[in-house]
Amino acid sequence: MPYSLLIRNCGQLLTLAGGPTDQPLRGAALADWHILENAFVACEGDKIVALGPMSALDETQVTAATTVLNAQGRVVMPGLVECHTHLVFAGNRAHEFQRKLQGESYLDILASGGGILSTVRATRVAPEAELLANALRHLHDFRRYGITTLEAKSGYGLDKETELRLVRVAREAGRRQPVRVVPTFLGAHVVPPEYKGRPADYLDFLAADVLPALQGEAEFVDIFCEEGAFSVEDSRRYLEKARALGFGLKIHAEQLHDLGGCAMAAELGAVSVDHCDYLSAADAARVAAAGRTVAVLLPLVPLFLRQEQYAPGRQLIGQGVPVAISTDFNPGSCPSKNLWLALSMACLKMGFTPKEALAAVTLNAAWALDLAAEIGSLEAGKRADILVLDVRDYQEIPYWLGENPVQTVIIGGQVV
Amino acid sequence: MPYSLLIRNCGQLLTLAGGPTDQPLRGAALADWHILENAFVACEGDKIVALGPMSALDETQVTAATTVLNAQGRVVMPGLVECHTHLVFAGNRAHEFQRKLQGESYLDILASGGGILSTVRATRVAPEAELLANALRHLHDFRRYGITTLEAKSGYGLDKETELRLVRVAREAGRRQPVRVVPTFLGAHVVPPEYKGRPADYLDFLAADVLPALQGEAEFVDIFCEEGAFSVEDSRRYLEKARALGFGLKIHAEQLHDLGGCAMAAELGAVSVDHCDYLSAADAARVAAAGRTVAVLLPLVPLFLRQEQYAPGRQLIGQGVPVAISTDFNPGSCPSKNLWLALSMACLKMGFTPKEALAAVTLNAAWALDLAAEIGSLEAGKRADILVLDVRDYQEIPYWLGENPVQTVIIGGQVV
Ligand SMILES: [Zn+2]
Ligand SMILES: [Zn+2]
Repeated sequence: MPYSLLIRNCGQLLTLAGGPTDQPLRGAALADWHILENAFVACEGDKIVALGPMSALDETQVTAATTVLNAQGRVVMPGLVECHTHLVFAGNRAHEFQRKLQGESYLDILASGGGILSTVRATRVAPEAELLANALRHLHDFRRYGITTLEAKSGYGLDKETELRLVRVAREAGRRQPVRVVPTFLGAHVVPPEYKGRPADYLDFLAADVLPALQGEAEFVDIFCEEGAFSVEDSRRYLEKARALGFGLKIHAEQLHDLGGCAMAAELGAVSVDHCDYLSAADAARVAAAGRTVAVLLPLVPLFLRQEQYAPGRQLIGQGVPVAISTDFNPGSCPSKNLWLALSMACLKMGFTPKEALAAVTLNAAWALDLAAEIGSLEAGKRADILVLDVRDYQEIPYWLGENPVQTVIIGGQVV
Repeated sequence: MPYSLLIRNCGQLLTLAGGPTDQPLRGAALADWHILENAFVACEGDKIVALGPMSALDETQVTAATTVLNAQGRVVMPGLVECHTHLVFAGNRAHEFQRKLQGESYLDILASGGGILSTVRATRVAPEAELLANALRHLHDFRRYGITTLEAKSGYGLDKETELRLVRVAREAGRRQPVRVVPTFLGAHVVPPEYKGRPADYLDFLAADVLPALQGEAEFVDIFCEEGAFSVEDSRRYLEKARALGFGLKIHAEQLHDLGGCAMAAELGAVSVDHCDYLSAADAARVAAAGRTVAVLLPLVPLFLRQEQYAPGRQLIGQGVPVAISTDFNPGSCPSKNLWLALSMACLKMGFTPKEALAAVTLNAAWALDLAAEIGSLEAGKRADILVLDVRDYQEIPYWLGENPVQTVIIGGQVV
């Protein structure tokens, strides 16, 4: 079979391959993956079929039917995997930005009926077509940054009808454009007004009435374990029910306080524990021991919330916790789709090296979505999600702060 | 005369007009400029000729010869004025980024022959065509961010021939594409190896041999007043000579230490004093008293250098110091062209409100280049440098962190 797509003259081909394939990258393995110089990568249909040094290219597979891209010495890498976003919502919260600048905290604004609840009010009354249009617009922007797979959480409905609508919109948005969308159910984002003061009752309602309707629709069930949201014990009971229904598990935990949610979720087998800004060394050891749970770090959130405490990335890597990096795109605590900026901030604020940070937005992010067998690295048999960047050395990627280095995006073997 | 260009249905037209016209905006005036809702702006040739509410649009001036843009309720504002960049250099310093991440300071790297001097070595041997190609590529990126006027400093030559080449390249780059380029001579960037230990001798050489060759070529003369570079006294003597030759004055000062360079330069009549991270309240009062000197704040620099100290923007505004915001784009301490990110960081780290920050990247930045009579606001008679943004409220501009909100860029009345 001739190649359907060939990228030649890749100055550096960041394969992300070479480490263990049965678990996420951790410790030294996070930076111990292969870079091929002066290389090619070839695809048939939506799959990668060959890659290697230019000298090993089988030119007989290059025919008139082959789309040939000449990378001209540029860096070529796997598509970015954005493993934590709140994609589907109505409106924005730019008006709250000024309140934050004047010193109000995230929890202050939440307590005054702002924050998540103001987006909930807007989202509940928004027509489904408007929600879909918003999601498609954001996906278009994400695609320009080279994101080829994106996790999308519900969580701005907090009632059965709206939450199902948000999952439906995420799935429909995935069908309407090339970026793969992985839906997560975050009905347990915060306690809705209807259940004020009764978080456990709300979780019981979700588990009994909503989760069964989402089997086969949402991949993961997530919960916000935090003061003012859900306790560790309530979260545990809810996640156990979700696991029994066959969902993969995720948790928002240790964002603002050290409550123990990350270790609890890791021990339940969660694919990821997200935020981790206040994760203690003792609990990090428990996450590491769990074996396959990825700590998803979100460095743009403390930046946007004007907090000084960032997740201890360097220490987590040292403790053998697998780490990924994401934006946490959402209207309240991180209205940014610039995952490259998050990557730079992980270097500047969490002590990642450039190679570690690159693994954290590709292969380990794929592990956080249980998709590492299909995406996240450039290897024969994996999906042809590939970026050509307008830089010549991978070290330039975090260096050009705030820039989008993407020149060409390929999803499933197609230039998009 | 019919309009050559008309932008209709501007949801918010950020005029930046309404304040004093004989000095930069300061104090309350920084946020006290006019926003017109549901408005138009009309141009003839390269000038703005009319603007106002849609109800006041004279439709008889709209003919078949008029290019009509429908902003459809979006925000329309003046082009960004980027008043502090080191545009022209060879190579990059991505390899140093890792050293910085491992804890080496800017001054450590400088002392070991890295930092500025490594860019100097690369720049001295680079062919002029390569320098021009680099500058044009960076200008293209700046233009995508909506920068319509850009100051470009020399300073990576540190010998007569190379420094003249850098100014020449900046001027030629300005001629080859639409962004207006304002050249500044920063031969006094750091002491070159040839003058090691003799900073005053180097400045005497610049003043005697180089400045006279740059009259009419560079608008401003700038100097890096800092430990390891030039002292306040040497800087004063040099700037006085530059002033006598007819150059406008700028200074890099109080970036890393409080030496007193800003107040000194303001008292010499400098158009701007740049960095100001360590500017004391007493010296800020001297800058304010000088009357027309703009403090150019560079929030991406401490972010990139992993320093905690940011210029006290809120306090400077309170003290009546006119403030502008810029990236400081350069290969060592800020490889970012994302002025929107700098604007967001000024809000998050320096306490600017969105309106203040917008004035700081437009009209006050124009004052920092002595161009406020021509650019920086939307007023009849000013140059038609205009942006259509893909947002509906100016408060969204700093809010969408790290994003580029620009939809359409107009320079001199032309869509570019
Ligand atoms: Zn989140
Ligand atoms: Zn500078």
